[in-house]
Amino acid sequence: MSLLIVGTVAFDEVETPYGKSGKILGGAATYIGLAASQYTKEINLVSVVGGDFPQEHKDLLKKYSINTDGLKVIPEGKTFFWAGKYHKNMNNRDTLVTDLNVLADFDPILPEGYKTSKYLMLGNLTPAIQRRVIEQMTERPKLICMDTMNFWMNIALDDLLGVLKMIDVLTINDEEAQQLSGENNVVLAAEKILTMGPKFLIVKKGEHGALLFADGKMFHAAAMPLNAVVDPTGAGDTFAGGFMGYIAKTQDISFENMKKALIHASAMASFTVEKFGTDRLTEINEADVKTRIKDFYNLVSFEI
Amino acid sequence: MSLLIVGTVAFDEVETPYGKSGKILGGAATYIGLAASQYTKEINLVSVVGGDFPQEHKDLLKKYSINTDGLKVIPEGKTFFWAGKYHKNMNNRDTLVTDLNVLADFDPILPEGYKTSKYLMLGNLTPAIQRRVIEQMTERPKLICMDTMNFWMNIALDDLLGVLKMIDVLTINDEEAQQLSGENNVVLAAEKILTMGPKFLIVKKGEHGALLFADGKMFHAAAMPLNAVVDPTGAGDTFAGGFMGYIAKTQDISFENMKKALIHASAMASFTVEKFGTDRLTEINEADVKTRIKDFYNLVSFEI
Repeated sequence: MSLLIVGTVAFDEVETPYGKSGKILGGAATYIGLAASQYTKEINLVSVVGGDFPQEHKDLLKKYSINTDGLKVIPEGKTFFWAGKYHKNMNNRDTLVTDLNVLADFDPILPEGYKTSKYLMLGNLTPAIQRRVIEQMTERPKLICMDTMNFWMNIALDDLLGVLKMIDVLTINDEEAQQLSGENNVVLAAEKILTMGPKFLIVKKGEHGALLFADGKMFHAAAMPLNAVVDPTGAGDTFAGGFMGYIAKTQDISFENMKKALIHASAMASFTVEKFGTDRLTEINEADVKTRIKDFYNLVSFEI
Repeated sequence: MSLLIVGTVAFDEVETPYGKSGKILGGAATYIGLAASQYTKEINLVSVVGGDFPQEHKDLLKKYSINTDGLKVIPEGKTFFWAGKYHKNMNNRDTLVTDLNVLADFDPILPEGYKTSKYLMLGNLTPAIQRRVIEQMTERPKLICMDTMNFWMNIALDDLLGVLKMIDVLTINDEEAQQLSGENNVVLAAEKILTMGPKFLIVKKGEHGALLFADGKMFHAAAMPLNAVVDPTGAGDTFAGGFMGYIAKTQDISFENMKKALIHASAMASFTVEKFGTDRLTEINEADVKTRIKDFYNLVSFEI
């Protein structure tokens, strides 16, 4: 079923111990869309780019069944640009450049055909923009998932708390869960956040996997230990894209099915980090995904 | 089958955000023994204490089927004492006191009946002592598992590398695996360490679980997210005790069975941290363990 994705489409420039990427296609919505495209061919994208955004990138998105009718182009503007450098242990990174450019005035306008999308993934953006997207939907999506970050907790907490009441699934990392809840303990943090609106909470722990919480239930998805993490950029967005893509494909929003979605999310993220940018995501096929899912099964499964 | 445990028996004094323990029974061999006693009733302990070690602690060990013939008492000496304080997030701790006392001159002498123990768990001690224990065995144990720490990598690396060639399973934490191998990546670190002697490597990641590596195979055991970690002291030792206790009970040293042993190890560790010191370990019974194992199963299991 149709999945609407709202988020950044950007240029990234990344340096890691494995090398330099040069200026490449990036952005949350890009990673979400490419990951989701492994599961559904009805993907609607809402974002904004400048006149410098090349046709080849647009063609790539279309090739992966991503409808770009909602990708606004501002010819006189420049595309959002982020540059960063990862340190040796890959857990810390320095942001070198953040040029918002056309993103600074982004006001998402949903094409008519998008307004009845059954599933909605709100990439990390200002809470005000996330709200305006939800308000344009003429039918309440079956599931709304939202990503956010500590930055919005610092400067737009009231707006953020407002949007939390409108969504179903929140994905944040462990430090953000602590900040949002004021609780150091992840179980207590989850209990508190689940009183703020979302019925499901996904706490992303990077190389340590992810936890899904809902209504007294808990599930842990391990991350796949890899012998080379070449570029972690976009892993969290890919995770969200794998999650929502799997949900849109299976049309089942039960906790049991979300567990599987979390494994697919982890699998897609494990691909992304194996190469720079979107290189790995645009290489893999259904068989690769199937094999990786089996690897995850073998990684954690035991009999009692 | 018989399990020989060599390690510290000590007094601990712990402060955590949940309170102060006062001076309580501690030590690696204590936690290892109590955890293993859930699985086997043939436990041989080798350690040393001072004249200040009370009969009630000895009685407790005996109550849990731990043979204390190898617990040397030095009447004029004092028992090893450690005091520490955990910070709010429980991941960091300050050591306030380390009085080695009788441990400083510890020379483990194995009682005759211990020398044919089928399984051997070497708690964290100087590599020289660990070696002397192995050398006293008249029959090579079916499995030798060893714990160590960064301290010995810093001051006794050659000794440590020597003992590594004599053992089967090494348990260390992720930072120690990095230090020992010189590799930041855990998969590469494991590959390197597995060329140093051990056929199996367990990398303990605290609240993030543990990884088992052997011969191209990999298994991840999640840690149970708990709503209150009251006192993390002894969690790693309890983990080792649960692991080796389960192995001694099942007498199966295959990778498949070690996966289950790792889950039992995690389960026992999850109990220990729920109360101060050994309080929780001396409360639980077989039914509690069974329930907790089921909780671990539900935490990570999914169908594909």
